[in-house]
Amino acid sequence: MPTIGLLVPSIVNPFYAEMVQAIEAAAHRRSMRVMVVSTYRDAMMERDFLDALAGYGIAGAVTVSPRSDSTAKLGGARHLVAIDAPPGTASVTINLDNAAALGLAVDHLIKLGHHRIAYAGDTGFTYARSEREAGFIQACRQKSLHGTVLPPPPLAMDEVRPELELFVRGKLYAQQFTLESLGVTAIIALNDLLATGISLGLQDEGIDVPRDVSVVGIDDVLMAQMTAPKLTTIGQPIREMAETAVACLLDCMRGDAVEDAIIFQPQIVVRQSSGSRSGLD
Amino acid sequence: MPTIGLLVPSIVNPFYAEMVQAIEAAAHRRSMRVMVVSTYRDAMMERDFLDALAGYGIAGAVTVSPRSDSTAKLGGARHLVAIDAPPGTASVTINLDNAAALGLAVDHLIKLGHHRIAYAGDTGFTYARSEREAGFIQACRQKSLHGTVLPPPPLAMDEVRPELELFVRGKLYAQQFTLESLGVTAIIALNDLLATGISLGLQDEGIDVPRDVSVVGIDDVLMAQMTAPKLTTIGQPIREMAETAVACLLDCMRGDAVEDAIIFQPQIVVRQSSGSRSGLD
Repeated sequence: MPTIGLLVPSIVNPFYAEMVQAIEAAAHRRSMRVMVVSTYRDAMMERDFLDALAGYGIAGAVTVSPRSDSTAKLGGARHLVAIDAPPGTASVTINLDNAAALGLAVDHLIKLGHHRIAYAGDTGFTYARSEREAGFIQACRQKSLHGTVLPPPPLAMDEVRPELELFVRGKLYAQQFTLESLGVTAIIALNDLLATGISLGLQDEGIDVPRDVSVVGIDDVLMAQMTAPKLTTIGQPIREMAETAVACLLDCMRGDAVEDAIIFQPQIVVRQSSGSRSGLD
Repeated sequence: MPTIGLLVPSIVNPFYAEMVQAIEAAAHRRSMRVMVVSTYRDAMMERDFLDALAGYGIAGAVTVSPRSDSTAKLGGARHLVAIDAPPGTASVTINLDNAAALGLAVDHLIKLGHHRIAYAGDTGFTYARSEREAGFIQACRQKSLHGTVLPPPPLAMDEVRPELELFVRGKLYAQQFTLESLGVTAIIALNDLLATGISLGLQDEGIDVPRDVSVVGIDDVLMAQMTAPKLTTIGQPIREMAETAVACLLDCMRGDAVEDAIIFQPQIVVRQSSGSRSGLD
């Protein structure tokens, strides 16, 4: 049975866990095995793993949110499909239309009456992270809106496990800035894990979600339905992206022609964490 | 750099995701790579993966909640450490004291005044699943308590993704039985994922947690802190178990003597989903 490699930053982040499961399902339908490796956003580990896979005779791999911007040139696996990576850095790149995702989030909040919207991101590079912040700024500019990019609160990384810092940082966001002083009535977060931390952190501070502040995530992982209030979020078509990644990788391995940069469109999923702006400016 | 294999049922279950991360951390501290494979609780896939790993020259593996009860005899990886498996089925087995875990949960609920306690499990075999149900029955008998093992509600597996059926089944548990008719005031669930589904399902039915019904999980995954109300649960020492698994695997690979069956003790983590019994019998 042929094997493909799969590199992800960490499977404790539920978006990557759900992407791994979707890629496994797509591969198993084609009678292929999947070997998963966690890179912890370390470019050295990414290269080491691609080389190790090649050493095992595994000629194809999918990499998600790679740290390295030159994976295509690294040797190692001969065929590489990258999800969440700049076009041109792998045989095929597959991305969400992050500008459209932020446009959907901003439009949704404007319709609910919000004028002062903040964006909460994270330190550390992935392609989606930079694209989402840029998409927020662009969407605000198009709507002549006052948008605030919040500075990520500092966090001692030794104290938290990798990836969980997103949840912890969300709580710090809620504690460290005084929303009233910014006049912010809505926050869009980089992803659902961060949004969940912000939402729970705000509630711990006595700030009601969504009555006082609306919170919108991105990804639509299962957790978005488990937290209270249930999270309004911008969904990625995870299964379609996974199916396309595996299909493209097989095409590459067969030597067939492939489209080299594929973009998927997001969809808004309105739940309970966003509501009409009730406060006054 | 040496590589070890790691077999888990599915990383979308947050307990397995956290165990994978802890095993990766323990291996990386020893300058070892980890290749992870998801078996979806399929004994054929487990054997295939162990054979594939051996084919790559990977001589040691850790398997979590294996389906097969004879992994030690399967060839494939020469050295196998199993977490959540019957003693004697691998070079080393590492388990939670599941009887003690259920004893802690039952004692906690008795102290809160509960007399009628139910246990919610799941279909499908793992060692922990059968040990936890047996532990519940034993704990109730020791306390001369009326304990009810709830029959898992049927679920069309095509409709849900693997592992997520636990969350969905929790919601069905909440919908399908009338708690009043059983007189049940507290439910202990097989794990936190199922407990979260039950807790949210009860609230969807207008039943308050913990005022009307207390819910207790097992594992203490991160999600237990994210759901509302925050989940009271019986914690497993995931990092210590992972550290021990990797250390034992290395000892086996070096030919050193190892203890062949190791048991870890659970700890109760009291949060908000359990409270005093307020109803009348």
